[in-house]
Amino acid sequence: MEIDTSPGAITRVPGFRAAAVACGLKQNGQPDLALVVSDRPANAAAAFTGNAFRAAPVLYDQELLARCRGANLRAIVANTGYANACTGEQGMRDAVRTARLAESLLNLPQDSTFVMSTGVIGHPVPMGRLEAGLRAACRALSPTGGADAARAIMTTDLVPKEASVSFAVGGAVATLGGMAKGSGMIGPSLVMPAEPGAGGGHATMLVTLATDADVSAGALRAALGRAVSASFNCITVDGDTSTNDTVILLASGAAGNARIDAGSGAFPAFEAALAEVCTSLARQIARDGEGATRLVEIVILEAASDAEARQAAKTVATSPLVKTAIFGADPNWGRVLAAIGRSGSAVNPARTALWLGDIPLVAGGEPLGFDPEAARAALKQPEVRFTARLGVGSGRATVWTCDLSYKYVEINAEYHT
Amino acid sequence: MEIDTSPGAITRVPGFRAAAVACGLKQNGQPDLALVVSDRPANAAAAFTGNAFRAAPVLYDQELLARCRGANLRAIVANTGYANACTGEQGMRDAVRTARLAESLLNLPQDSTFVMSTGVIGHPVPMGRLEAGLRAACRALSPTGGADAARAIMTTDLVPKEASVSFAVGGAVATLGGMAKGSGMIGPSLVMPAEPGAGGGHATMLVTLATDADVSAGALRAALGRAVSASFNCITVDGDTSTNDTVILLASGAAGNARIDAGSGAFPAFEAALAEVCTSLARQIARDGEGATRLVEIVILEAASDAEARQAAKTVATSPLVKTAIFGADPNWGRVLAAIGRSGSAVNPARTALWLGDIPLVAGGEPLGFDPEAARAALKQPEVRFTARLGVGSGRATVWTCDLSYKYVEINAEYHT
Repeated sequence: MEIDTSPGAITRVPGFRAAAVACGLKQNGQPDLALVVSDRPANAAAAFTGNAFRAAPVLYDQELLARCRGANLRAIVANTGYANACTGEQGMRDAVRTARLAESLLNLPQDSTFVMSTGVIGHPVPMGRLEAGLRAACRALSPTGGADAARAIMTTDLVPKEASVSFAVGGAVATLGGMAKGSGMIGPSLVMPAEPGAGGGHATMLVTLATDADVSAGALRAALGRAVSASFNCITVDGDTSTNDTVILLASGAAGNARIDAGSGAFPAFEAALAEVCTSLARQIARDGEGATRLVEIVILEAASDAEARQAAKTVATSPLVKTAIFGADPNWGRVLAAIGRSGSAVNPARTALWLGDIPLVAGGEPLGFDPEAARAALKQPEVRFTARLGVGSGRATVWTCDLSYKYVEINAEYHT
Repeated sequence: MEIDTSPGAITRVPGFRAAAVACGLKQNGQPDLALVVSDRPANAAAAFTGNAFRAAPVLYDQELLARCRGANLRAIVANTGYANACTGEQGMRDAVRTARLAESLLNLPQDSTFVMSTGVIGHPVPMGRLEAGLRAACRALSPTGGADAARAIMTTDLVPKEASVSFAVGGAVATLGGMAKGSGMIGPSLVMPAEPGAGGGHATMLVTLATDADVSAGALRAALGRAVSASFNCITVDGDTSTNDTVILLASGAAGNARIDAGSGAFPAFEAALAEVCTSLARQIARDGEGATRLVEIVILEAASDAEARQAAKTVATSPLVKTAIFGADPNWGRVLAAIGRSGSAVNPARTALWLGDIPLVAGGEPLGFDPEAARAALKQPEVRFTARLGVGSGRATVWTCDLSYKYVEINAEYHT
């Protein structure tokens, strides 16, 4: 199973078409509306932000998933520029109107279209522009539109994020492809609905995943829950969980395999494919975090539990002192231990060990001599890894983030609403 | 009761002397060692960092407070440059040696001296330089040494932090004065020992408080716990709780008042004086946070509990998106609501309201029209306040922080260990 991160991932999945248009939602005139459509009714699973101020599109999608019980989905409309969050009742009316218009233009049944939005909070969506864009997108749908769609969902992203894999399943070959956007307000804490359609939620990261494998809604939900937990919920740029984070997975069944249930022999292969695509997209998001110059991997071992390991790793990954030290290529490992120590995770200081890449920095809680030049060189690589053993148990976690640079401040202080 | 923030607060307390010397712990040659001494044996209370990697001076002070049961304390030695954290057994030996040397030089009984350190983690303290400095400091002790001592504990601080008040108590007039340092690695979560000397802790913020009032150790502990909770535990610069945060309060009894117990009629006046000094010092720290251009006050009302209100306020106060927007004077209030929404505190979106200073931004969960120029002007003031009502209960909290500027990145990325 080889991952393909080249442009066009979502339409490398047979039976999916996509389009992108510029309709004036972005001030810079770049494409700002993406449409992805399955030729066949698809099963679906999704995960949503846990933020208390869930945006209208999130609320709409959650209700839609409940109504349709994870079946007969066809399309996803994603716009940038306006988050449609904190927009009150008008916001919900606009989300519904977007879905209905897509269904009408594409001759799809009602309740077959998801909507996703990202952009400024608290401003109503200019629906005239969005509707004109949606009409144009429906006309432009193409089996090679994936690369354009992946670019249209970008905001402060510098590069599109795409990944796909093909895998053998029940005598057939299926493909799973995904595209993601996310660069700032990235601290996903996605929640899976407890059952098809129950509420939930926590991520503005937008992720669209598609496969032509035939997978039951229950199996999709089980696989997506685990994949999200180990990928998108393990990244952070600024720790700021968005009002709009959404991950939607569509499975059309066009590959013609025997339907995969959670108990099927083919389920592990599907799960592995999904996990691989999600992890690739999550790492791409962290690497392209606002102002990032490096991808940073924090590995915590020997924690009391996996949950405590993740808590410690996330505390390190959101520490401004750790992130600026990495930007400055300063091997100031004390900031890493201080962050672990404030995380609330159990630690045995006398048994703590720390590495920068392969360079041992701390053992038995005491500093080791190390070559500062080698450490600085390790910190200047495009990928930086800190590994800590907490000496308490067997819990472990890996979290991905980026450094904190002048550019981060520029992007977020010189942005004007 | 009028607060006096002019230089020399700690030695405005009768019966306290102080000194500062430069002994080469700071690379820039500035004063780096401070000594505060009470002419009489003092009762004491203290609060310490809850970080799992507590520095040697913190561990030493906790044990000292246990041994002496909050009585017969005389001196505090504070050094900058080296935190003496993650320094293993040598670190503890160095902390003990520092205390013993001070006691010997000042003819004080053993177990009467606290130590405090701030600076780089994981490097042994150059004890030769520190000891030479301590000898000089003992010779330089002066009843007007407070201002110099407040400057000697500064690290990335741009200004010293001092405050004192005088108050009538039991027919006498007493004074309470304090000095603090703290600019980065500020996210105190101080813990009071459960009883005199029991372990505890979470803050590198160093705070020395002194009064000539006669107050029992139990009353000191009760008053300090409440004062810390509403002041130092309500500030954040970067959210990074230090390995070294320490607050120590000495009460010498030189004022000659009837001893104040927690049940005394005079206790409220003492508590009020302590709260006022602690709040002043805490605000001074937030205002002088690394790279800060503004003091930011976050007020949360109508939360489910005071604890949830504080959790919401701290989440807003540590949000990089909120802090950069304030630096950029952009009224991007959606970032404030998004931070509240991810805090884990209960929120009723339909009953949420938000103000910037006196400007209403959101009511009933929906955006209000406001004058963007007035909002930008409010964000450019030296003090910026956001107030949010969560519409759930009657919990409330106030937290102080600062904005996030290019200078913050410079200070922490161009610092080299």
